Amino acid sequence: MTPVTQPVASDIDGYFTREESRIRSELDEFLRIPSVSARSEHNADMVRCADWLAGRLRAFGMTATIHKTPGHPIVVGEWRQAGPDAPTILLYGHYDVQPVEPLDLWTSPPFEPTVRDGKLFARGSVDDKGQLYIHVKAVEALLKVRGKLPINLVLLAEGEEEVGSDNLADFVEQHVDLLRADAVVISDSSMFAPGLPSILSSLRGLAYFQIDVTGPAQDLHSGSYGGAVVNPAMALARILATMHDSKGRVAIKGFYDKVQKWDRKSRDAITRLPFSDKHFKSETGASALGGEEGFSTLERIWSRPTCEVNGLLSGYTGEGAKTVLPSKAMAKVSCRLVPDQDPQQIARLFTAHVKRVAPKGVTVSVQYIHGGKPWRAELEGPLYDSARRALAAAFDKQPVIVGEGGSIPVVGDFTRVLKTPVLLMGFGLPGENAHAPDEWISLDNFTKGLRAVATLYDDLGKRT
Amino acid sequence: MTPVTQPVASDIDGYFTREESRIRSELDEFLRIPSVSARSEHNADMVRCADWLAGRLRAFGMTATIHKTPGHPIVVGEWRQAGPDAPTILLYGHYDVQPVEPLDLWTSPPFEPTVRDGKLFARGSVDDKGQLYIHVKAVEALLKVRGKLPINLVLLAEGEEEVGSDNLADFVEQHVDLLRADAVVISDSSMFAPGLPSILSSLRGLAYFQIDVTGPAQDLHSGSYGGAVVNPAMALARILATMHDSKGRVAIKGFYDKVQKWDRKSRDAITRLPFSDKHFKSETGASALGGEEGFSTLERIWSRPTCEVNGLLSGYTGEGAKTVLPSKAMAKVSCRLVPDQDPQQIARLFTAHVKRVAPKGVTVSVQYIHGGKPWRAELEGPLYDSARRALAAAFDKQPVIVGEGGSIPVVGDFTRVLKTPVLLMGFGLPGENAHAPDEWISLDNFTKGLRAVATLYDDLGKRT
Repeated sequence: MTPVTQPVASDIDGYFTREESRIRSELDEFLRIPSVSARSEHNADMVRCADWLAGRLRAFGMTATIHKTPGHPIVVGEWRQAGPDAPTILLYGHYDVQPVEPLDLWTSPPFEPTVRDGKLFARGSVDDKGQLYIHVKAVEALLKVRGKLPINLVLLAEGEEEVGSDNLADFVEQHVDLLRADAVVISDSSMFAPGLPSILSSLRGLAYFQIDVTGPAQDLHSGSYGGAVVNPAMALARILATMHDSKGRVAIKGFYDKVQKWDRKSRDAITRLPFSDKHFKSETGASALGGEEGFSTLERIWSRPTCEVNGLLSGYTGEGAKTVLPSKAMAKVSCRLVPDQDPQQIARLFTAHVKRVAPKGVTVSVQYIHGGKPWRAELEGPLYDSARRALAAAFDKQPVIVGEGGSIPVVGDFTRVLKTPVLLMGFGLPGENAHAPDEWISLDNFTKGLRAVATLYDDLGKRT
Repeated sequence: MTPVTQPVASDIDGYFTREESRIRSELDEFLRIPSVSARSEHNADMVRCADWLAGRLRAFGMTATIHKTPGHPIVVGEWRQAGPDAPTILLYGHYDVQPVEPLDLWTSPPFEPTVRDGKLFARGSVDDKGQLYIHVKAVEALLKVRGKLPINLVLLAEGEEEVGSDNLADFVEQHVDLLRADAVVISDSSMFAPGLPSILSSLRGLAYFQIDVTGPAQDLHSGSYGGAVVNPAMALARILATMHDSKGRVAIKGFYDKVQKWDRKSRDAITRLPFSDKHFKSETGASALGGEEGFSTLERIWSRPTCEVNGLLSGYTGEGAKTVLPSKAMAKVSCRLVPDQDPQQIARLFTAHVKRVAPKGVTVSVQYIHGGKPWRAELEGPLYDSARRALAAAFDKQPVIVGEGGSIPVVGDFTRVLKTPVLLMGFGLPGENAHAPDEWISLDNFTKGLRAVATLYDDLGKRT
């Protein structure tokens, strides 16, 4: 049964309508700062961007502190006057953006926000400055219209998300009292389709490996030695070919032992999403889709673990021919993991498998490079109930529950350190070019996002 | 029964003894010219080297012509006054040398000939300037001592052997009348062991391929797409893993159809050679030897065809991790061939095999880059009888018959175009570093080589 949709509160709605052009021009200011975390020539822009953000928070009554890190600064904003009975919400976002190269593929310059066809084009428009600013302005609206927030709020904005969040886990562990909250809210993802608000139910984890196979001590002449020495590149191929069975399942012993099967309800929910294999195939450019038998495309990406080759290198790779019997062959291989697989345990199983199938005559080593745990939302309780109501109010459509095949390690850090539920509720859209030229955010989603987030905080405050 | 060994003719022997120091100092002059065919900065040295060689031939009464090619010049020397009943011998060699890098691994500079422990160290000392010069000085000795040669001789020295002999086949085809001969003699190979003169009985052929596997149109995020799109690197590994069966045989249908089994006598002869698997293994640095079951190491290299990976490339190959689902994966794969396998036919079988085992969801293409036919000597007739006698006379040891796992495409060209038997009789030794730093030729082999070659030409003239 579909719950009745409540409208967005009229006072809040009126504020956004009245202030629309100022909010948009402030967003443009934010987007004009080239906060590219990966490029040291932008270090000063990173500091300027953190200062600018802190200034905007202070302008409507939040306190704001800039924390130095070994990398780029972290901005923490606070408003804690809702009283001890009101819930405390930790909002996470990031103010850094991806590099903009190749510049010649941008229709308009990446740091000059430009509207075309209802889309606001700029680097960071959707990832994640635009989505972070939705929260900032929703909080402003509540404070300006009502004089106070219904919740205690801590805003955490980092400047290193696009370069691996190297300093964030340490910061969270060292500031548990500052960041302690009843719920974490993140808007750094996408809706499943236009007009279809979405709540993320899961993230896959990761275990990333390098396999090195060594045969002869140096490259040999394939004529003088070929046929009498085990070829390490061929040995590597034979090792990799054992990773899957004929049904596309990962053939590593014990690999699926901890894999939770999704229940019928969750699997049925996926089938109701507006998804077309044909469209997905054309998006990838592959000649056909593939994967584990017995699962649909979305199930394969969201609910099933994988084992993928990410890179191969051996011997001669230039133009034409060189008759070398290589000394070494290397593969990068990674497994995407699902609850309750553990990256460390998968690393042990993976390594044991490779050792077991390694041909004689070569030396094989496996290096576990890094990993992260999978995550699955409970989707129950006041946080998710409020999110459903808020999204339905703003978009006039019940939100869908969607999975995510990628990994967001910070979610695991929040869960592990703060022991609190996390809500992932994004306003991007498929095709938004988050890491590519011509990044954009839908202006309709930005407008509805303001209303959804304000309604969420309002609702969370009422329910305690 | 071992034939009785005849000594080297005393007049010739005396000439070499008297002229030893001049011959050696001329060889040093030849070796000092840095005739590196692969490096355009040495183009003038190539011309100088060809001129120098032509000058030496003229100095003792041969005519010499320098033929321009699109690459480096070809030197042709002639002496045709032995009369119409005497055989015509075509001597082939090359005056170009391999690059010398890495220079810091040379004990003495590569173009300053230096003697240590009975070895003459210099780039080109054994491959092939030193061996070519053995023939030049043997001819000089016969002409100076006897006033004439017992044979008609055409000397063909190219400057592009180390870069693929791109212009030689065309030159041979366009100069059939100039090069027509009763036998071709080549000294550009090695003896099986010190003191053990050797005649080559076979060369393997080659069919070299590139396999390209394409999955998605561009690299994809392995989180967002992994598990639902066929991974081209994994597909390539699965293709390569089908190339051999569990006994190390090439599993391509029809691959062995034309393979001649070596007869019992040839296989037995191999077992009498002084060869140690243990020593061979330590030479390669591999942890164990391997290959086709039922064959010894030398049989695997000389008498059996192979399928080897020469190179692999796909996706991310730098340090650390990048979670990319690659768009493309490439392998260089080559087959060494034995009589009567044909490279063109093997190309058809190889391509058909790859297409048959290629997984769905990826596009697989096979490119035949180049190939060469295998070759096997008849080992019967006056040419080989003379060679056996000449080597036995100079080395005081009956020569052994040895195979060669590598390929010398020009041998096939001579056989195809000139329709004449080819004698491969080399004076190198194992460990001579032909393409590596500290290349050397044994001075004992150089001295005995002079006597062997003079005796060979003398003997060939007598037998007609």
